[in-house]
Amino acid sequence: MSLRYHARQSVSVAQLARYLESALRFAQGAGEVILPYFRGNIEIENKASEGRFDPVTAADRAAEKRIRDEIAVAFPGHGVFGEEHAHQPGDGLTWVVDPIDGTRAFMTGMLHWGVLIALFDGEEPILGVMHQPFTGEYFFGTNTEARYRRGSDQRTLRARQCDGLAHATLASTGAFLNASVEDHDAFHAVRRSVRLTRYGGDCYLYCLLAMGLIDLAIEVDLKPYDIQALTPIIRGAGGVVTTWDGGNPAMGGRIVAAGDSRVHRAAMEMLEKHG
Amino acid sequence: MSLRYHARQSVSVAQLARYLESALRFAQGAGEVILPYFRGNIEIENKASEGRFDPVTAADRAAEKRIRDEIAVAFPGHGVFGEEHAHQPGDGLTWVVDPIDGTRAFMTGMLHWGVLIALFDGEEPILGVMHQPFTGEYFFGTNTEARYRRGSDQRTLRARQCDGLAHATLASTGAFLNASVEDHDAFHAVRRSVRLTRYGGDCYLYCLLAMGLIDLAIEVDLKPYDIQALTPIIRGAGGVVTTWDGGNPAMGGRIVAAGDSRVHRAAMEMLEKHG
Repeated sequence: MSLRYHARQSVSVAQLARYLESALRFAQGAGEVILPYFRGNIEIENKASEGRFDPVTAADRAAEKRIRDEIAVAFPGHGVFGEEHAHQPGDGLTWVVDPIDGTRAFMTGMLHWGVLIALFDGEEPILGVMHQPFTGEYFFGTNTEARYRRGSDQRTLRARQCDGLAHATLASTGAFLNASVEDHDAFHAVRRSVRLTRYGGDCYLYCLLAMGLIDLAIEVDLKPYDIQALTPIIRGAGGVVTTWDGGNPAMGGRIVAAGDSRVHRAAMEMLEKHG
Repeated sequence: MSLRYHARQSVSVAQLARYLESALRFAQGAGEVILPYFRGNIEIENKASEGRFDPVTAADRAAEKRIRDEIAVAFPGHGVFGEEHAHQPGDGLTWVVDPIDGTRAFMTGMLHWGVLIALFDGEEPILGVMHQPFTGEYFFGTNTEARYRRGSDQRTLRARQCDGLAHATLASTGAFLNASVEDHDAFHAVRRSVRLTRYGGDCYLYCLLAMGLIDLAIEVDLKPYDIQALTPIIRGAGGVVTTWDGGNPAMGGRIVAAGDSRVHRAAMEMLEKHG
């Protein structure tokens, strides 16, 4: 069962703070489950019945189970929607979880992956946490504020200003090699207009956009759990994130995020013209 | 003045151990210089006079100066060849230094960059160190052995076995979008033959190959200081690294590295056929 929009559940400021604190704790617990598998002897299964390579690690499943168990204790009425286990609808608020976003990076020992946890109110994610347990980093936000924490290094996240594509640094997890011809051409039209393009990154690149180090991110085929946790971080840092046509990004799909609304607008126009 | 091959300088086992210890110390010192600039207020200059974007950071220069100063004290007769300052020929042994390999990753706040230090004997690098100061990691090797160290986590590096391209994980820093048509086509022919491809990584991907997490790396346009430090790590872990036509990789260029010689051979054949 897929995630659906529904009437928005209202949440007080005090409740939001409590949920955020819980989300950070869930992420930490998941990180503790995951870390022993990193660069270790990971059992890899092939989730796709044939053809496309779709790795699922034991770490992924164990971490999602850990998060679900903690949610069941802390908020038994809430729903949970994750990558690995069945969607469990709740009473209006749904935890949207990707235990390891960036599975391929994780599998190859690279560092741009993380635990993603969001809380969805029926229309939007109201909080989001990204946690990288190897580096000990946390990026988290509530749409109005975003913060970074790594040990004693604690700071507010602020996306940077950028006046247009010509000065922008673009990031994308892939190079659109497996995308549709239209999406491929649209992406590369933007790529040719920017100053610098970086590939790879998954959740990490959106966090760096919120940190003011990347100006623009463009991707396709995102799932709700790939983007929901990142949305309140990007928006909390002053950035903009939508679908390519300017819609609500909560259900994933083709996503464009920018630190500055001028870059976001210019990218959307170019994606539409060439797509 | 570019780096040149010359008559090989012989080094005893005891000297090699002393040089390796020094290289690890130089890398640590460079990391201390670099870290305050990471995700901070980096001064970016444009080294290329016009056109291509070629960032040089103050961190890069300060770190190379630190390494050169330490070498001048410890081994005043040795040469130094680096990215930022002039080549200083020596009495037979040359330190080959890239203070920040992966400048673009560094600039965007990503984690796949590192300090590279090699010692070149006129024909081959006899030792290599890669240090990532943010994560506190060291990868180092002497062609016959390779090690990993991060705090109390210390282990021998061993590349993994892989029987052919169909089971291989390929990594490359870029997607060959700016390469020649021949190189682009040759790379993508290999890419279509492997199980999984990851983009981004710079020095980090070669270290993960030595760690047994990546099977194959293919790149073009590498400089001597991009590859020399990594060669003794890859070889020390049991891997193979050459130019695309099987030659000595010490001067960079088009590089192919693999954890298993069967994958290396299959990749070389395909690069030649399609290139």
